[in-house]
Amino acid sequence: MLIESPDMALFDFTLDATDTRSAARAGTFETAHGPVRTPVFMPVGTRATVKGVTAPQLREIGAQVVLANTYHLFLRPGADVVRDAGGLHRFMGWDRAILTDSGGFQVFSLADTVKLHDGGVEFRSILDGSPHFWTPEDNMAVQQDLGADVAMVLDVCPPYPAEEGTVAEAVRRSAEWAARCRAAHTRADQALFGIVQGGVFAHLRAESVERTVEVGFAGYGIGGYSVGEPHELMLESLAPVAAALPKERPRYLMGVGNPTSMLEAIALGVDMFDCVLPTRTARTGTAFSSTGRMNLRNAQYARDFGPLDPGCSCPTCTGYTRAYLRHLVTMKEMLASTLLSVHNLHFLLDLARRARESVLVGEYRAFLDAWRSGPGADDY
Amino acid sequence: MLIESPDMALFDFTLDATDTRSAARAGTFETAHGPVRTPVFMPVGTRATVKGVTAPQLREIGAQVVLANTYHLFLRPGADVVRDAGGLHRFMGWDRAILTDSGGFQVFSLADTVKLHDGGVEFRSILDGSPHFWTPEDNMAVQQDLGADVAMVLDVCPPYPAEEGTVAEAVRRSAEWAARCRAAHTRADQALFGIVQGGVFAHLRAESVERTVEVGFAGYGIGGYSVGEPHELMLESLAPVAAALPKERPRYLMGVGNPTSMLEAIALGVDMFDCVLPTRTARTGTAFSSTGRMNLRNAQYARDFGPLDPGCSCPTCTGYTRAYLRHLVTMKEMLASTLLSVHNLHFLLDLARRARESVLVGEYRAFLDAWRSGPGADDY
Repeated sequence: MLIESPDMALFDFTLDATDTRSAARAGTFETAHGPVRTPVFMPVGTRATVKGVTAPQLREIGAQVVLANTYHLFLRPGADVVRDAGGLHRFMGWDRAILTDSGGFQVFSLADTVKLHDGGVEFRSILDGSPHFWTPEDNMAVQQDLGADVAMVLDVCPPYPAEEGTVAEAVRRSAEWAARCRAAHTRADQALFGIVQGGVFAHLRAESVERTVEVGFAGYGIGGYSVGEPHELMLESLAPVAAALPKERPRYLMGVGNPTSMLEAIALGVDMFDCVLPTRTARTGTAFSSTGRMNLRNAQYARDFGPLDPGCSCPTCTGYTRAYLRHLVTMKEMLASTLLSVHNLHFLLDLARRARESVLVGEYRAFLDAWRSGPGADDY
Repeated sequence: MLIESPDMALFDFTLDATDTRSAARAGTFETAHGPVRTPVFMPVGTRATVKGVTAPQLREIGAQVVLANTYHLFLRPGADVVRDAGGLHRFMGWDRAILTDSGGFQVFSLADTVKLHDGGVEFRSILDGSPHFWTPEDNMAVQQDLGADVAMVLDVCPPYPAEEGTVAEAVRRSAEWAARCRAAHTRADQALFGIVQGGVFAHLRAESVERTVEVGFAGYGIGGYSVGEPHELMLESLAPVAAALPKERPRYLMGVGNPTSMLEAIALGVDMFDCVLPTRTARTGTAFSSTGRMNLRNAQYARDFGPLDPGCSCPTCTGYTRAYLRHLVTMKEMLASTLLSVHNLHFLLDLARRARESVLVGEYRAFLDAWRSGPGADDY
């Protein structure tokens, strides 16, 4: 059903429509760098750059919000440099919304040596092995220096698979750190999102939701997925999490962005997504399309003078042929990565946009069913 | 002096102005893909792509004509593929003018094994060692398949240094091949340029001019420079060559495009330039500027929040800081190559544009003197 929008304040999340046959919703999240219409896919700009894609190109394909990684920026060029540049928006030349993760995921998955205390986390730089220590308060200071529109709390991310005890410990510690982050966070122009953990244990997810919501945040990340668990297990355990989170706050499924998972999660009431998949896949010479993945190395494209994806309106599909893209890919030309990244990002941005439109007209269920029965569903 | 322009036919070259204190001139060369205003710098798109730069980005910085390499395109994807795609313009998505070299330079400088006969040249692919044989007629067929606005004759390029006898032989053979190319070339929408050789031997250059002009072409390339000879030697031997070429035809100094050489050659009456220097330099993290080259790896830029080149109006200088570009360069991010390529190409395109404006207002001598006495003159 369509909902009337009142005047909005910073970080208000207004539900523009909710689906009657699923938990899908269309919303608007207000930031100091413009509104973000959800469901939304967020391109990942790890080191303050979406690899190979310029800011004007991102604008052209309709990116509303870009993600940057606190861990990487903390190491290089350093949060102080970004702060002194006037913040991330000015540093990277992007005037729409930005979200920074806390770096918790990278600390736990990338660092060779990581030591966890109740007080904080010790880790070593992947770049030069230098030792670092973050309390939740330190992490908030770093993210406030970076100055994104949305910051995430520092959480503890257990690997998958993990013992129930390990996950329970992570849930407990994440909740305590969430409260400390909330207390340490002072930037009025930056929203702070909590993060729900709990792995694939339903009761731990439930506990994490309860404890995180108790602290109270402008939005909620759902972490600990897309770490190797089976696709079905994720959706199964995600459903009650999404349902339990407050309706009036945006829900962000962290690190998930393959087309099928995104559409299924939207049906469960998730609003925001990010993933390196579209750009990473592009750099291997593979394109997304409504009929599945296309490996441009394939000889069948050598004399194929049609567009990459006939139904697509992105600059790559309207400007170039499969034969040309294959030529660039096989010759290892940089432009291949740029043009395929633009297309793959557009594919996900557009899929989220069309999902939103389906919710607005009350047709999300049909939209999802069409995807499920289409040729691309099993390929992602 | 300013000259009035009559109505122009395809491949007419109109002199818009000539300088009174040097041989510099401003002209307009008509092609089926728009007029080319000279002096002009031509970005190099070796494999039908200016490395890391999209067609819209090239348009934005004012590129009028792009060069593509016949040798590389002949090997991959093959001239037949480009032809079947509708020609180079459609293949690479570039609707302004294109010039293809003949591939002669690459055949003689890149191929491991090359055998020269009066009939043609035998060479092996740098990609897979496969054997190929080109007569001048074969080469014309290839370039007509590619379908650029300007094709170049197949010439013989001796290395530097070379014995006088070797160069004399190259001049003789190049002239004979020029006549065969001219006879074999039939595309009405494609201009064919002759090429003057002769190394640093004044009498051989004079002979080459005479024999090539005798055949008669829509324009003249000046080849065999920028192959390792000293800068002064090039200018010294270039002066009489440029002076001897027909005034009413464009003159193209092949493979030369460092700023100082370009401006000096313009003073000698040269109209067209190409060089991989701006993009290749960009990929090493170095930027061109009016004050010389800047190595962005340098730590002095880590907290430099000013533009790359304060006087520059290119998208890189108006959108990003030195600190950000240094960050991208040190992190080996693809975007560094793209943004620096855009800037470096703009630098040369703009330098040629300003040279043209100086000729139009009768101030080229002052413009050249200002460059010569400036901080960048010795750095290129």
